[in-house]
Amino acid sequence: MNAVEEMKRFFEPRSVALLGVSRRTGEGNFNILENLLSYGYEGKIYPVNPKASEILGVPTYSRIADVSDEVDLAIINLPRSLVPGTVQECIEQGIHSIIIVTQGFADAGDEEGRQLQKELDKFIEVNGVRILGPNSLGTVNTFTRFSSSFAKMDMTKVPISIICQTGVFFELPESLLIGKGIDLGNACDVNFVDSLEYFEQDNETKVIVLHIEGMRDGKRFLKIAGRTALKKPIITLKTGKSEYAAKVARSHTGSLVGSDEIWATALKQSGLIRVTDIDELSDLAGAFSLLPTMKGRSVGIVSSSGGFNIISIDACQKYDLEIAKLSPVTIRRINALSPSWQSVGNPADMWPACMVLKQPVTRVVTETLDAMLSDHKVDAALLIWYMSSDQVCADLGHLLAKLADTHKDKPLVCFFYGDHVTEAKDRLKARSGVSVFNSPDRAVRSLSRLAQYSNIRRGF
Amino acid sequence: MNAVEEMKRFFEPRSVALLGVSRRTGEGNFNILENLLSYGYEGKIYPVNPKASEILGVPTYSRIADVSDEVDLAIINLPRSLVPGTVQECIEQGIHSIIIVTQGFADAGDEEGRQLQKELDKFIEVNGVRILGPNSLGTVNTFTRFSSSFAKMDMTKVPISIICQTGVFFELPESLLIGKGIDLGNACDVNFVDSLEYFEQDNETKVIVLHIEGMRDGKRFLKIAGRTALKKPIITLKTGKSEYAAKVARSHTGSLVGSDEIWATALKQSGLIRVTDIDELSDLAGAFSLLPTMKGRSVGIVSSSGGFNIISIDACQKYDLEIAKLSPVTIRRINALSPSWQSVGNPADMWPACMVLKQPVTRVVTETLDAMLSDHKVDAALLIWYMSSDQVCADLGHLLAKLADTHKDKPLVCFFYGDHVTEAKDRLKARSGVSVFNSPDRAVRSLSRLAQYSNIRRGF
Repeated sequence: MNAVEEMKRFFEPRSVALLGVSRRTGEGNFNILENLLSYGYEGKIYPVNPKASEILGVPTYSRIADVSDEVDLAIINLPRSLVPGTVQECIEQGIHSIIIVTQGFADAGDEEGRQLQKELDKFIEVNGVRILGPNSLGTVNTFTRFSSSFAKMDMTKVPISIICQTGVFFELPESLLIGKGIDLGNACDVNFVDSLEYFEQDNETKVIVLHIEGMRDGKRFLKIAGRTALKKPIITLKTGKSEYAAKVARSHTGSLVGSDEIWATALKQSGLIRVTDIDELSDLAGAFSLLPTMKGRSVGIVSSSGGFNIISIDACQKYDLEIAKLSPVTIRRINALSPSWQSVGNPADMWPACMVLKQPVTRVVTETLDAMLSDHKVDAALLIWYMSSDQVCADLGHLLAKLADTHKDKPLVCFFYGDHVTEAKDRLKARSGVSVFNSPDRAVRSLSRLAQYSNIRRGF
Repeated sequence: MNAVEEMKRFFEPRSVALLGVSRRTGEGNFNILENLLSYGYEGKIYPVNPKASEILGVPTYSRIADVSDEVDLAIINLPRSLVPGTVQECIEQGIHSIIIVTQGFADAGDEEGRQLQKELDKFIEVNGVRILGPNSLGTVNTFTRFSSSFAKMDMTKVPISIICQTGVFFELPESLLIGKGIDLGNACDVNFVDSLEYFEQDNETKVIVLHIEGMRDGKRFLKIAGRTALKKPIITLKTGKSEYAAKVARSHTGSLVGSDEIWATALKQSGLIRVTDIDELSDLAGAFSLLPTMKGRSVGIVSSSGGFNIISIDACQKYDLEIAKLSPVTIRRINALSPSWQSVGNPADMWPACMVLKQPVTRVVTETLDAMLSDHKVDAALLIWYMSSDQVCADLGHLLAKLADTHKDKPLVCFFYGDHVTEAKDRLKARSGVSVFNSPDRAVRSLSRLAQYSNIRRGF
């Protein structure tokens, strides 16, 4: 079985055994069986619990040896001292893939933890079993409605896949939706390379997100990453920059952390897009999953606020984008909407067109944006608008989606303000071709990364 | 009447005349009268509209001359050509304070706009009338439930006051709550100095926020700002950094914009806290209004995530804060909660204490935080926690508020993740002593500014 086939067992198991599943259910009990049932996971589930005969209506087994069917994946969540024995039993049962959730191995401060992890190393070496973890939430795959995470997952299917060294990236439902994910934990066996090779060939993955604290075989990883980055954008948060952070990272996942300068150069050379924080991580995951890349560096800005226009120009300067020099025909189209005393350019302040000339917001916004996006001198558009009413949200939401369909080759990013921002965001959520951000700066920064990725693909 | 008394007319009018109020009401019609009624403004309102006898049950006047009572403040929202005549009528009526909402003066691209603004200049010079604007949303004062803004305002009383050159800062209800605000617009008369002097002495203002594009009398402003910054933190967003942005700023509000380097030095020397974007602006306005300043630079971190601990250490390094070296007694208290295999320090990863030892989250978090905040080597605490259930939110919300009361002299900042983040934020909203942020980086950045302000106050 090749490596990618092996990884499929972790992401697309047809049957799972749960070792260490509790009879306690309900909120706050982190019951994996309960989670799987609530997702509607369609594979077979074999819960192992010597003290129960069934949990939530699912028959349980006293020992894994009692399961007579084939099991693709075992998930172990037992006290650490019981883990090696349980792994042994799984191997005897013919199980080749195991997720170990339990903490207290190389991540612990003590000798016993280190020894326990060495025992796992031996199984891997001798028996060829594949182990994910220990100290791992395992995997999530919204496309098969599966997750080994004890944290309850959002099962929205999005083409964003993450490889991380902490399960917290599974638990940011407000900002980072993921379609597939793997928490490497201590990475005693399954690592960045295995996971990246799986996502490289995975049709459900359009954008790859990495959270890296450190790793053993950096060279091989960079080779695979460099190859993959030409096909799919790889958004990377590399943490553990200082000496002290590196020390803590060692005790977190037991992995080595190289100097930050080396990492910075290596990631850049391999064509990975490095982000500074989780805000940018979330912004870019969303942007790359919804928007086309940006072919050039020129932005057209349409806005209801002169003040935010200036903020946006500052942001373009900061992120090395240009304010597009509009063609005469575009300028004529825009000025036709505005009061005669106004000489509108780029950014286009379209508030007077609505307030002074009392034209409908929808007409002003779509006409101006269409003029900008039709201009060959404009590579992307930024809309900044005041969401003053439900009606404006509804109408604009509809029209922006249509506009994005008409101009499929150019990204359209938005920042909204006013008291109906939440509705406006909801209406455009996960709408291909448009992406809404929390500030003009973040919208512009995301555009700049879309332009950067264009260059990466072209080999610059 | 001194300048501060004059400014009171703009912020605390006992009676207002509305010139240019429409009969159209309801969402999207931006009716100031409707807004004032909905706020429950208790002053007297005199709507002027020659075509109506009453609007929303309030009797209207054909001309301002028909109002026989004293009027503290007139708000003009009429086509620009009618504005000078209306100002003249207001002056004849004995009105000393006028807000001009109308656009198309120095902000317009044409000669007529410039001429119209010159006419206003003449009134100010000859008649001593005070004018705010034109091209201004005017003022908001949640403490008297007043606003001249056509945008509907949130009337939550918070000790945050803003002086801005665009009304959009009145319209960020999701991120920036303001208690009082003034939009200077084109600032033909009322300016930064007038407004700052008012907020300097205003007891309802604890934090001052500035949005500056440019101004005429920078020297006098910096003198007043430097004096005020010793009493109240002044959070400043200076926009219009590039040449092009400066050009656009001129057409936005007609004001001059100096070079960004000059501004950077001047703001720093005067003890103003400069922010990079509206995210930081919102974060700091909240933090300074709720938290004590940070006396030193050492942070204690309590967390449910080893991964986020490393991210937080990186952030501390970036923002020049230190990871506190805990006292032995603190370390003993924390380790007593954790599995024997774990050697907990700072950051303190307390997830095993809950997951492995099955102790209640509330006990673990409050005991650890109390140990940290009681340690004289710790100047502030950062809590990063997984909000896994309603119960955890409710319990922690209550306990964190109590903890903040016990340790009033040290800021407590939080970042939450998991699917109950919104509830957790709501529970701690506007709770003095605790502040919740959208990322560990933003929490740490805010702490660093609290430490910076400590130094400003001490004259460093």
